Amino acid sequence: MRTCLIGQKRARRGTCYDPAMSLYPFVLEMKKLLGQVETWLDKASAHAAGKKYDPNVLLQSRLAPDMFPLIRQIQAVCDQAKYAAARVSGKEPPAHPDNEQTIEEARKRLGSVIAYLDGFAAGDFADAAVTARTISLPRWEGKSMTATDYFVEHVQPNFYFHLAMTYALLRHNGVDIGKRDFLGQLTMK
Amino acid sequence: MRTCLIGQKRARRGTCYDPAMSLYPFVLEMKKLLGQVETWLDKASAHAAGKKYDPNVLLQSRLAPDMFPLIRQIQAVCDQAKYAAARVSGKEPPAHPDNEQTIEEARKRLGSVIAYLDGFAAGDFADAAVTARTISLPRWEGKSMTATDYFVEHVQPNFYFHLAMTYALLRHNGVDIGKRDFLGQLTMK
Repeated sequence: MRTCLIGQKRARRGTCYDPAMSLYPFVLEMKKLLGQVETWLDKASAHAAGKKYDPNVLLQSRLAPDMFPLIRQIQAVCDQAKYAAARVSGKEPPAHPDNEQTIEEARKRLGSVIAYLDGFAAGDFADAAVTARTISLPRWEGKSMTATDYFVEHVQPNFYFHLAMTYALLRHNGVDIGKRDFLGQLTMK
Repeated sequence: MRTCLIGQKRARRGTCYDPAMSLYPFVLEMKKLLGQVETWLDKASAHAAGKKYDPNVLLQSRLAPDMFPLIRQIQAVCDQAKYAAARVSGKEPPAHPDNEQTIEEARKRLGSVIAYLDGFAAGDFADAAVTARTISLPRWEGKSMTATDYFVEHVQPNFYFHLAMTYALLRHNGVDIGKRDFLGQLTMK
């Protein structure tokens, strides 16, 4: 079995492959989807107005008593995107104190992270440094992941988990959103 | 502004970038997560045995009356992974008639798609053909997406949507699963 080149990984069947892919399109997609959450909140506010309830009540709803309420789901989906872009590109992310209490504050949080992601360019995710970079979080007790593994195995599942829970909570409460609101516009020709 | 090379895309700030990344790690991740669903079903069966109810009742549960029940969510998450691997690599996927009625049948469906994904290697997603390939579904009425756009904007959000709804439905019904069951083992050093 031949030796893989430096930076390559061994796949099943013994072949070598290069994990130095560009993660940029996946970052752009997260940015787009944070924008979709803004449209869900518009519909949540409309639902509350139609039924004459305080829309901020929704932010405390949960799918199970030991799951995060809606506001924490929104904070978490924002954080996954923010930390992904920052850590994979080796930058310091802005701090957010997680003190949002209202739909308007949730909207500001989303806008702030979308603006932060706007500051990145393809080159931030395409250079060889991304492949070489390792990421370690305090709770991992000294262990680390490669930037690519972190993005594929940690960021993507966590981002989409909290995004889908946000959607599920609104949908479960009767807000008029559907799959198209989840996906947003697709790049079609 | 300089012209981008053939196969490159123009990003914001006018820079060109190469979308020919390897999607293979993302396919492996989907395979891993289908395996996680099998572990959730184990816990669902244990929950049903402990509470003395028929576990197949869970398969008809919904988060909203106009959302898919659990069994359709499981079928959909299987399909997203299967079609992603097949379409992006230009292969014909196996057919599944969507006639599962029991947890055991859902488990077989998951196993069948995991085995199908096992048949792919890194090379199926790394060659230039992936970049050149376009994908068109009957319901898109003649429009198409590049394989990369399809994977990033369609497959990933849809796969994770149905995966998270599967998790949410089990969790909402009291099955003892948590975030670690969702993510599975991470590649740490």
